[in-house]
Amino acid sequence: MSKDRYFAAFAAFAGCNVVLAIAAGALCAFIAPAAAGSGIPEVKAYLNGIDSYSILAPSTLFVKIFGSILGVSAGFVVGKEGPMVHTGACIASILGQGGSRRYHLTWKWLRYFKNDRDRRDLITCGAAAGVAAAFRAPVGGVLFALEEAASWWRSALLWRTFFTTAVVAIVLRAFIEYCSTGNCGLFGQGGLIMYDVSSAQASYSGADILAVILLGVIGGILGSLYNFLIDKVLRIYSIINEWGAYFKILLVITISLLTSCCAFGLPWLAQCQACPTDSSVSCPTVGESGNYESFQCASGYYNDLASLFLNTNDDAIRNLFSTSTKKEFNISSLLIFFVAIYFLGIITYGIAIPSGLFIPVILAGACYGRLVGRLFESVSELDTGLYALLGAASFLGGTMRMTVSLCVILLELTNDLLLLPLVMLVLLVSKTVADSFNKGVYDQIVKLKGLPYMEAHAEPYMRQLVARDVVTGPIIMFSGIEKVGTILHALRTTGHNGFPVIDEPPFSESAELCGIVLRSHLLVLLKGKNFSRERVISGEEILQKYAAFDFAKPGSGKGIKLEDLDIDDEEMDLYIDLHPVTNASPYTVVETMSLAKAAILFRQLGLRHMCVVPKSQGRPPIVGILTRHDFMPEHILGLYPHIKPHKRF
Amino acid sequence: MSKDRYFAAFAAFAGCNVVLAIAAGALCAFIAPAAAGSGIPEVKAYLNGIDSYSILAPSTLFVKIFGSILGVSAGFVVGKEGPMVHTGACIASILGQGGSRRYHLTWKWLRYFKNDRDRRDLITCGAAAGVAAAFRAPVGGVLFALEEAASWWRSALLWRTFFTTAVVAIVLRAFIEYCSTGNCGLFGQGGLIMYDVSSAQASYSGADILAVILLGVIGGILGSLYNFLIDKVLRIYSIINEWGAYFKILLVITISLLTSCCAFGLPWLAQCQACPTDSSVSCPTVGESGNYESFQCASGYYNDLASLFLNTNDDAIRNLFSTSTKKEFNISSLLIFFVAIYFLGIITYGIAIPSGLFIPVILAGACYGRLVGRLFESVSELDTGLYALLGAASFLGGTMRMTVSLCVILLELTNDLLLLPLVMLVLLVSKTVADSFNKGVYDQIVKLKGLPYMEAHAEPYMRQLVARDVVTGPIIMFSGIEKVGTILHALRTTGHNGFPVIDEPPFSESAELCGIVLRSHLLVLLKGKNFSRERVISGEEILQKYAAFDFAKPGSGKGIKLEDLDIDDEEMDLYIDLHPVTNASPYTVVETMSLAKAAILFRQLGLRHMCVVPKSQGRPPIVGILTRHDFMPEHILGLYPHIKPHKRF
Repeated sequence: MSKDRYFAAFAAFAGCNVVLAIAAGALCAFIAPAAAGSGIPEVKAYLNGIDSYSILAPSTLFVKIFGSILGVSAGFVVGKEGPMVHTGACIASILGQGGSRRYHLTWKWLRYFKNDRDRRDLITCGAAAGVAAAFRAPVGGVLFALEEAASWWRSALLWRTFFTTAVVAIVLRAFIEYCSTGNCGLFGQGGLIMYDVSSAQASYSGADILAVILLGVIGGILGSLYNFLIDKVLRIYSIINEWGAYFKILLVITISLLTSCCAFGLPWLAQCQACPTDSSVSCPTVGESGNYESFQCASGYYNDLASLFLNTNDDAIRNLFSTSTKKEFNISSLLIFFVAIYFLGIITYGIAIPSGLFIPVILAGACYGRLVGRLFESVSELDTGLYALLGAASFLGGTMRMTVSLCVILLELTNDLLLLPLVMLVLLVSKTVADSFNKGVYDQIVKLKGLPYMEAHAEPYMRQLVARDVVTGPIIMFSGIEKVGTILHALRTTGHNGFPVIDEPPFSESAELCGIVLRSHLLVLLKGKNFSRERVISGEEILQKYAAFDFAKPGSGKGIKLEDLDIDDEEMDLYIDLHPVTNASPYTVVETMSLAKAAILFRQLGLRHMCVVPKSQGRPPIVGILTRHDFMPEHILGLYPHIKPHKRF
Repeated sequence: MSKDRYFAAFAAFAGCNVVLAIAAGALCAFIAPAAAGSGIPEVKAYLNGIDSYSILAPSTLFVKIFGSILGVSAGFVVGKEGPMVHTGACIASILGQGGSRRYHLTWKWLRYFKNDRDRRDLITCGAAAGVAAAFRAPVGGVLFALEEAASWWRSALLWRTFFTTAVVAIVLRAFIEYCSTGNCGLFGQGGLIMYDVSSAQASYSGADILAVILLGVIGGILGSLYNFLIDKVLRIYSIINEWGAYFKILLVITISLLTSCCAFGLPWLAQCQACPTDSSVSCPTVGESGNYESFQCASGYYNDLASLFLNTNDDAIRNLFSTSTKKEFNISSLLIFFVAIYFLGIITYGIAIPSGLFIPVILAGACYGRLVGRLFESVSELDTGLYALLGAASFLGGTMRMTVSLCVILLELTNDLLLLPLVMLVLLVSKTVADSFNKGVYDQIVKLKGLPYMEAHAEPYMRQLVARDVVTGPIIMFSGIEKVGTILHALRTTGHNGFPVIDEPPFSESAELCGIVLRSHLLVLLKGKNFSRERVISGEEILQKYAAFDFAKPGSGKGIKLEDLDIDDEEMDLYIDLHPVTNASPYTVVETMSLAKAAILFRQLGLRHMCVVPKSQGRPPIVGILTRHDFMPEHILGLYPHIKPHKRF
């Protein structure tokens, strides 16, 4: 092989990668920008109650699936796990809406999920199914959905996610069984356990435990640094991405070329190593994947760095986890690969392709762990493959900050139950260390995207305020029997989704809070045009003119729009009875209620609107309505700039 | 061996058992009756907010530990897992109270858990540690605590239980390492994995899956029948137990003799079998535990029924789970053992000894599974040991109705990841089948004990009622500045733990709800005797006469009692300002709020008192206070007998 051939090979390699990358980037940039990135932060935000149409739209699903395939094929340092979670959630969302009307994919029998909670449960199940399928880890999927994705836990939800992932496990198992006869190419290789390390001896001494704790501490620091750098890079990229779709694609091309250069250029730095004589697998590797890539080396030799770079990410992880192959990778090669993957992972996340974070973090962590294992090989008995596993655990703990779910996912990935105490120890140490620096990577991305995420706990400064303090603006309220024109004007001039309804004399003794009415229900009511000339209570009979289904929550982005209404001037002066569509049992707080307690009530019950009622008598029966946005730190600290929040990263 | 010797052996066997049983029964009957039974229902009720002193008292802990040891040694069909969960919770409770003052075990540095929530979290961690230690299943322990024990989930709780069980795993691992050199007798045998079945081939076909589904269905039916029978037996036993401590012990002796008779008598029904020639373990067994007990058989032969009956429960389970020993147990022997254990388990639970339910259920389930495996051996390829595991799963799912936690516990018990899809399938099927008959066994016991357990969901009939409807009795309220005599009278004549405080003119414009004051805080305030002659607001300065610690929640059963107060007649006419100890932000609902929504608010936020405020103006500012008891079905259906609740078992 001459040097020219290598240049040609590089050109072919980089060229293929760039073409695939452009395809992925174009899909993302032109069809569904929301499909870029991992998708887990978006799913997490949706399950917190942030109902944004694009997050789970059919176009996002389409781009997520094909963009992810193209992106992974293009050799980027990205994973397919995050996108699979997003894909699962998208499919669940579309099923929950009864299919997609726009793409003429609707099913009658799928119309059961017409309220927020059931739809949220279904999407949680979808996310669980995504993890279960991605890692072939059904129990890990349940725990991921509960620990990271869902904001509200119920035992019913546990049961439903468990059901979902059990089905995933059985279907996966059936496919693997069918494919093990070679019917479907590479699919299903490795069985249910993707990186089996159970063959390694897991006996360890006190010195090993000290080494493992040190590994956890450094892993935690590197993990939180990863989060910090990703945050900075995302801020830079968001500026570039705002310039337009072509700049997005240009960025994708740049990163693709950089990745190709690293993958093809860096292996030249490694020296050829002699193949081990006792290896059971062929060396150098023949075919597509294996432990020993020959690259530029002569027969009987292999290039260890090429075995990591010029393989799929999955195979590279498998190589790093491989046990009883202590000397396979040189310390220098591991160091080069670690630095390259660590930074490639950081700069790749955020470009306009679907990109999961699990694989880059596991890859960098496994390399880091194996490196530590090589460094400690004189004092520690633990296999370097197991060190790689622990290193991956420390990185995952340091960036994602999950505990039980990561533990079970790693257990299901590697089938090494005896190593469980060490994995738990590493996760504990790395999460604790990393938590003292910054937040988990998904929380950070949610915050960066400006999504109004409700935290589970109230901020300490909220204890100094009461509910009344954060109510803003003049409140718009309706009478129990209201003029059509007034309602229409309010709908047109505000973006509020809930309006308080007040009963006034002669319909009650004094002004009383009747309840709260939703914008969507008002639109349905107005569309029906059941108006009357007089201010009379029409009662429940008005509801008989509607089907129950009319008031069901429509799919996100669907439902009646304000522009769909066609109300003429004459009708503007007519009256309509709002009682039948008013929720007469809204959750209320007294105006002097501590804001912290109000926030907990709002968050725990998963509310969208909360009424603030006056404490003393003789005043209008409602002080204001609180929504998610009123609890956001930006809003509160904007109103009360003198309050110093505790520094929370 | 002559027949006489067998009688002597039986007498010695039964005698030892009865003596141990009497010791266990006497501990329970005389020292701590609360220690009888599994303890998981009690822990579950405590974590739901039912604060009963005896549940987690030091005496209960003492009896639980030693009673459980004696009970298991006495050969009862009982487990140590439930008691270990209770033990963990008791230890956590005592630590959280800063030790026990009564037994002079107090520590200054343990006084941090002076509020309900932190103490509840600590006890959840204790329960998790119990499971983790009992099954050597750290992740299973976390999931058990979250799925079955805890009523409120928070991600902080997940992290804390994970931390606890990680420590348990590491300590266990260290002990096992230390004991593996033979330093501590039988302890630590089997390593971290108690019943390893990973050596078995886990390949299965469609026929196997059908067999497994059938196994799940029948397992679910038998599991719910188990619950039904336990319920009936407990009702009978509760009558016997009420007759007095000696009857309790008599019942224990009866069951002990019955168990001994079964264990010694039934093996005579089995025929001797020839030892397998290819066995790697000695046959017949030499020493204490093993697969092949000789009993009455000649050398070279073993009695399969004796191998099950005359072993510890743990060893019997290990024998049933043993793989690649298809023909070891006869179908008739398995049938006899199954029937005996199924009914012995049912009649043993509820007698006055600490008795776990896990082991009896696993034992009966494993036997049932192996029986099914033997019956299907002509059509199914699956190992009979794996059938035993699936049978145990189906029984556990059918009685306890957990999902993820059982799945992980079984995985950690048996280390067979490849069987996971089948275990999930069996759990799904058996839980679904059993749920259509009755509730889980722990829920059933909680209900039987009459504990006011708050369900996570509101009952359907609650939607027909509003909050006002279930408020009972004249409400007792205090003024912001109240006469000492009035307070004392209210404390003496009622058992209420919370009282509303009303501000009246001239301290406010009109009567206003100021907040709610707790009985315990009133007692502390009265004890301090900071009274004044006039109705004046003393303000916060009064608090400076108390330490913050005075108002911290005391350990259960501790704190100031009403009898501790020494207030003379003159002081009765003085005034005291309640504002400093009033919670000015109580959670309130409007009287017309749907009772179902009020119940959800109450349950989700973990409240003890909820104020019901009037809707219209010009009335007293509070309608009543709702507590846990007001939401109980018995209370509501007592008030409104015409409401037909849906049959919910």
